Amino acid sequence: MCYTSPMGYYIAVDIGGTQIRAACYPSSGLEHLCLARTTTRPTAESPSPATAQERLMELIASVWPPDGEVTAITVAAPGPTNPYTGVVFRAPNIPAWRDLPLAQELRQRFYVPAAVGNDANLAALAEWKYGAGRGHHHLLYLTISTGIGGGIIVDDRLLLGFQGLAAELGHITVIPDGPLCGCGHRGHLEALASGPAIAHWVEEERSQGAPTCLPPAGKITAKMVAEAARKGDELSIAALARAGHFIGQALADFLHIFNPSIVVLGGGVSRSGELLLQPIRDAMPEHLFSPHYLDGLELATAQFADEVGLVGALALGRTLHPALDPVSS
Amino acid sequence: MCYTSPMGYYIAVDIGGTQIRAACYPSSGLEHLCLARTTTRPTAESPSPATAQERLMELIASVWPPDGEVTAITVAAPGPTNPYTGVVFRAPNIPAWRDLPLAQELRQRFYVPAAVGNDANLAALAEWKYGAGRGHHHLLYLTISTGIGGGIIVDDRLLLGFQGLAAELGHITVIPDGPLCGCGHRGHLEALASGPAIAHWVEEERSQGAPTCLPPAGKITAKMVAEAARKGDELSIAALARAGHFIGQALADFLHIFNPSIVVLGGGVSRSGELLLQPIRDAMPEHLFSPHYLDGLELATAQFADEVGLVGALALGRTLHPALDPVSS
Repeated sequence: MCYTSPMGYYIAVDIGGTQIRAACYPSSGLEHLCLARTTTRPTAESPSPATAQERLMELIASVWPPDGEVTAITVAAPGPTNPYTGVVFRAPNIPAWRDLPLAQELRQRFYVPAAVGNDANLAALAEWKYGAGRGHHHLLYLTISTGIGGGIIVDDRLLLGFQGLAAELGHITVIPDGPLCGCGHRGHLEALASGPAIAHWVEEERSQGAPTCLPPAGKITAKMVAEAARKGDELSIAALARAGHFIGQALADFLHIFNPSIVVLGGGVSRSGELLLQPIRDAMPEHLFSPHYLDGLELATAQFADEVGLVGALALGRTLHPALDPVSS
Repeated sequence: MCYTSPMGYYIAVDIGGTQIRAACYPSSGLEHLCLARTTTRPTAESPSPATAQERLMELIASVWPPDGEVTAITVAAPGPTNPYTGVVFRAPNIPAWRDLPLAQELRQRFYVPAAVGNDANLAALAEWKYGAGRGHHHLLYLTISTGIGGGIIVDDRLLLGFQGLAAELGHITVIPDGPLCGCGHRGHLEALASGPAIAHWVEEERSQGAPTCLPPAGKITAKMVAEAARKGDELSIAALARAGHFIGQALADFLHIFNPSIVVLGGGVSRSGELLLQPIRDAMPEHLFSPHYLDGLELATAQFADEVGLVGALALGRTLHPALDPVSS
């Protein structure tokens, strides 16, 4: 990795389900100097014929600082990614990205160091380095959203595993013959406690005649459930309690496995507040082999919301160049 | 930690359920120069009135090299232990050991560096450094015996966690309302697939009239089950297959979490061979979110048997002093 000026800029990219964002950051701090976005697919508003990859390259060029060097370009990618080689195996909503050597293409195009990481892993890095987990050495991050993903800091380092596929915490089995997961297997945490799983359970109960203030027919979302629960809707409260119970059971396993000092919950569903958190707190001790795992354990909600992908990619860039980073914990 | 001669000796101690062993090793290699043992409790043959701690101190003195310096004393302890402080929280069969600051007492008595580790963690270190896992950087070790314990190497380092309580892999929940575990909770892996769990299941099935060549009444052990299974006893084969299925399900979770390049199975039950291993291999893919986790994955049985505690303690001593260790991977 080449040496660059300590006053260099960082370009962070977040590839989401529907849009790609790129931001240019100075050598320290979390305020970006410039932010631009594009969609992952052409839309009526931006009917660009360019591929997602071409649009990504143009986006990066559009935030390039005119007055200095770029230290690194780092990308938070959804879906399975090899962080050692920078290859994106798959990206939801960009079907053409199959085994795309993205880091290599960025290096060849822009002549600067580039790296790619899984978005949930980088969210964990963001919370550890700049957010709710600052000062902790053993952190477990769980994002509960459309899917459930994870990221783990062990001894101040991101757990990646042999091929970079570690920390897929949404795909651990909670109920062996439970509901079908998006991955094709049964009873995974994601199939029981993700946003769509919560909404689906409410729809099923509603169709069985459970009383609710939610609309009597049509699609339900986890956001609608959280809002109704806050207004006292019992079915919605029960739905969050059920998801919280499964998350708590899975967290007990993770505590046995990692013995972290903090668990950070991110993603849209985690913003449901105490109606989700209290059932999690209640379920954990039921499955813990020793109460010592709760000694000094902090259960926190994430500091970053929509910007977590950009901040995670930034954290990766600055981790690649720790000497340049005065904010490093 | 003080500097000592590179030609120093290592004293390794293994505290088991019924006996304590101490061995003196040279600066490299795995052949001990001297080995001594005592029982954890006074017996008819050794009716010593001394406490377990006094006998441990005498044992170490008895293997002390007359001709050189001791680089470190390291201890593999059963049960929960804080590896950072060297405190043994509890030791099975030595009721007096409650929050015993063992490393500190060894340092004060012998004036050399001393450290204590959990036996399953140190078994993982032994297999990674000297045994079946040499050359791997991401290793998962599972010991299946009277209990089920684990040890994890991430990026060439032992995973310890915030208080050193990580890698309690026997206490993850496999069946939420399953059989009662020794720890008081239900459905843990240990309650489904440890030696006693296998034997108990066979006893239950026998009492329901299942045909078997095992004795029609009386206590069954996992060793008896393994021997009967090798001779073709169908109930015993089914018992190992059942345990293997649960171990395979748990391993799928661990692969998602750690993405190791090798899984090493140790402990008495793992020596049941293919009758246990094949059901494990069959069960893993059923619960895996992506077949990539099996790419290049090695499933191995442990290289060390009864000596694994001593070799693990030795590995800890040499890890504390890596510069002295020519065998280090």
